[in-house]
Amino acid sequence: MSISVGNTIPRYRPATTEDDITAEVLRRIEATPDPRLREIMLALVRHLHAFVKEVGLTEAEWFQGVQFLTDTGRMCNDIRQEFILLSDTLGVSMVVDLLNHRKPEGATESTVFGPFHRDGAPELPRGGNMASHDVSGTPAIVTGRVLGLDRHPIPGALLDVWQADSTGLYDSQYHDTSKLHMRGKYVTDTSGQFLIRTSRPVAYQIPSDGPVGRMLKATNRHSWRPAHIHFVVSADGYEPVTTHIFDAIDPYLESDAVVAVKDSLVCDFIEHNTRDEAAERYGIEPPFCTAAFDFILKPSASRATRTL
Amino acid sequence: MSISVGNTIPRYRPATTEDDITAEVLRRIEATPDPRLREIMLALVRHLHAFVKEVGLTEAEWFQGVQFLTDTGRMCNDIRQEFILLSDTLGVSMVVDLLNHRKPEGATESTVFGPFHRDGAPELPRGGNMASHDVSGTPAIVTGRVLGLDRHPIPGALLDVWQADSTGLYDSQYHDTSKLHMRGKYVTDTSGQFLIRTSRPVAYQIPSDGPVGRMLKATNRHSWRPAHIHFVVSADGYEPVTTHIFDAIDPYLESDAVVAVKDSLVCDFIEHNTRDEAAERYGIEPPFCTAAFDFILKPSASRATRTL
Repeated sequence: MSISVGNTIPRYRPATTEDDITAEVLRRIEATPDPRLREIMLALVRHLHAFVKEVGLTEAEWFQGVQFLTDTGRMCNDIRQEFILLSDTLGVSMVVDLLNHRKPEGATESTVFGPFHRDGAPELPRGGNMASHDVSGTPAIVTGRVLGLDRHPIPGALLDVWQADSTGLYDSQYHDTSKLHMRGKYVTDTSGQFLIRTSRPVAYQIPSDGPVGRMLKATNRHSWRPAHIHFVVSADGYEPVTTHIFDAIDPYLESDAVVAVKDSLVCDFIEHNTRDEAAERYGIEPPFCTAAFDFILKPSASRATRTL
Repeated sequence: MSISVGNTIPRYRPATTEDDITAEVLRRIEATPDPRLREIMLALVRHLHAFVKEVGLTEAEWFQGVQFLTDTGRMCNDIRQEFILLSDTLGVSMVVDLLNHRKPEGATESTVFGPFHRDGAPELPRGGNMASHDVSGTPAIVTGRVLGLDRHPIPGALLDVWQADSTGLYDSQYHDTSKLHMRGKYVTDTSGQFLIRTSRPVAYQIPSDGPVGRMLKATNRHSWRPAHIHFVVSADGYEPVTTHIFDAIDPYLESDAVVAVKDSLVCDFIEHNTRDEAAERYGIEPPFCTAAFDFILKPSASRATRTL
């Protein structure tokens, strides 16, 4: 029986406790060339391992976690982003929002982007109706201005607007997802004003037929979001703001499933039930409602500041 | 202009800092009915938020993270489990293993299950060759016993065995994934002995064509695993053990991409290059190798202990 020389080398003494494993993984990640990626990966591994150790995760629970993440990923496609929904419902999206948008006093606050934005919304004229197919909705006129911090109007600012229809669904949640609906791009006029025609937003449940819905149910949380309209407002020389306006009378303002309400974004939707002056001005039959909201942008960071 | 009564209710003052968001999400999760799920979710949210705040995650980085998790999930299918690979490469799987398998002195240690186990491996007789199609492999005979802690043999113990072939690939990594290969189930005889014929295991790279491969590359880590054979060893009245045996001369023992090496699992593969006594006993032409390894099982927890 011939024994190879290789078998006589001393055996490696590897990690034998869970803290050794953490130390070893961190040691390896230290070699990450990009310093920012290194920082993120080191913190990620520390927190991830600390979580697993703190709860004493069992193998069955670990496998449930793997399965949950797998299901979440497999639910994603061009029009469904279950990981954004997960981030939103765990409050991670709002933490990221708050870390990244410390607005100077007076600028419009941001909130979550959400999973329902789509590119290619039609460019609509002043007063154009982005809810033209939403026959059961209550018409809503949203007016306002886009302003700088010193309150001067910004002409030519772009408002990318989207919302759920009056049944609480976004266009991408319908069987035929090819049609864009309840979306529009509006541009402010020379006095910084915009005029949007849409439907009054309604509270709706976020998609609950996937892993995030199961998580909300298991944690005894509802899946309602208060009525809102999404906006990304941008203009040359200013920082764009991703935000919503919320209907002030919505019962879910305090319990938004994605924790995204900020007081400054709550807006009165005024009901018009008679042929009043507004009905005449906008050429619209009652009942309808009007809302007014000014978006205030802060100047974009100069290039010099950005490269610091 | 008629204003609805609803508009006059006082507005909700919601969370306005990132710590408020964390507190609010934790407050909601407190309502989780299942106490263990509540414990896990509370810890998860605390650690996840702490990670995001510690590194000051930007929106672009958050979106990269969402994209990474989405890609990882979409890579998963019946034969590819990219989230297990991610857990393995981040050391999470080994931490879970160590938390869950504190063996009494003497019992065989466990290690990661990995993403390559498949159900339905053929039941092979004593000495059956699980590598019958692996023509380029060096034949290996693995012998040993399955024993209790007091070293008494356990007849009828089941060994579910799988490994990569001599090119470093598992059957599920081939184009035709329908065929099971390099897998077998063996049962110990009346003296607790088993006899496995396979190929000598080789070091291989874990699948690197997906998000986990990108992560390893970006963190400057290699994707090699030291040569090993996978086992799940089980017997009535004993705790099953999920483990590997590793080839003692492998150069990757110290840098296993999934940090799964334990010293007690390292095993000599003895090379036979002449027609020696072992060649005669096993009816095998040199060159081949032999390895001997005893699996020692601890008794399963009694039902009484389990329900405590």
